[in-house]
Amino acid sequence: MPRITIKAVEGRTVDQKRGLIKDITEAVVKNFSVSPESVAIDIIEYTKENMAGGGKLFCDK
Amino acid sequence: MPRITIKAVEGRTVDQKRGLIKDITEAVVKNFSVSPESVAIDIIEYTKENMAGGGKLFCDK
Amino acid sequence: MPRITIKAVEGRTVDQKRGLIKDITEAVVKNFSVSPESVAIDIIEYTKENMAGGGKLFCDK
Amino acid sequence: MPRITIKAVEGRTVDQKRGLIKDITEAVVKNFSVSPESVAIDIIEYTKENMAGGGKLFCDK
Amino acid sequence: MPRITIKAVEGRTVDQKRGLIKDITEAVVKNFSVSPESVAIDIIEYTKENMAGGGKLFCDK
Amino acid sequence: MPRITIKAVEGRTVDQKRGLIKDITEAVVKNFSVSPESVAIDIIEYTKENMAGGGKLFCDK
Repeated sequence: MPRITIKAVEGRTVDQKRGLIKDITEAVVKNFSVSPESVAIDIIEYTKENMAGGGKLFCDK
Repeated sequence: MPRITIKAVEGRTVDQKRGLIKDITEAVVKNFSVSPESVAIDIIEYTKENMAGGGKLFCDK
Repeated sequence: MPRITIKAVEGRTVDQKRGLIKDITEAVVKNFSVSPESVAIDIIEYTKENMAGGGKLFCDK
Repeated sequence: MPRITIKAVEGRTVDQKRGLIKDITEAVVKNFSVSPESVAIDIIEYTKENMAGGGKLFCDK
Repeated sequence: MPRITIKAVEGRTVDQKRGLIKDITEAVVKNFSVSPESVAIDIIEYTKENMAGGGKLFCDK
Repeated sequence: MPRITIKAVEGRTVDQKRGLIKDITEAVVKNFSVSPESVAIDIIEYTKENMAGGGKLFCDK
């Protein structure tokens, strides 16, 4: 029962999310030999002031 | 100092959350022999387009 | 499909974990009106040098 | 800079992990229009006494 | 490539977040001997009804 | 009550962790105006086959 969390900056469409969930589920099924039903995924979306890399907020880049 | 995260689809009332926090805290105190003060809990709420199971977004089910 | 993560210092027995999972699942079913089958839980265990509070590692307390 | 965490029961080979990382990275690049270099992934592995579903530890199923 | 998540009650300004990201990045660079570019941080903000301690929601304290 | 999780490849000494916890706690106290006692931190350590960037496991880099 693999459980996957995706953290990303907000702004993706439902279609983009739908496609990603489909493809990641297939990737887990193929590589970890589990059923699609056992794959649980959640997406946490961030504003650009809540994600940072290299010491800088994304809203400052 | 157990730390617990609950991920769920949005839409629960404050009363439901209050009851859940009370009951989970009691469960941790009883089973892990810690004080209630040491139990920290947070709830992450998701829209139905940000949670998925079986390769499908919850908004598509 | 609530998903719950419990973070705690290592050292609990399987019986303690079994009891906690049972009680937390019941707490979620009761308060959030979901089926037991929909409740997924995982436990992350830490050595005392990997958890800290008040600026101090647990191994130093 | 999408960041992805995969939680799964232990026991997969390095080859299985390598394949999963490759496929998930491609899925994120394709659907979220980011560069492969921006995709960060980590895998948390669990013993069967630290994962549960439906109120039961995996070691009891 | 250390990856850090900060969970806090909402209400901090961008300036407070900017300062925290800068200082935490420096702390990781200094203590873990990595480059600033390798440090990834995200902030998850909570309403007071989604964080709890000692069995009580923060909105009830 | 900020709660912070640090994910990093294994291999740091207790001294390195002790220093990091001290410095991050001070950074949170200074920037978010909280007491040191309210800052909870945990460190999740990974083998190089469980962390990846750019589509490659760290053990393959």
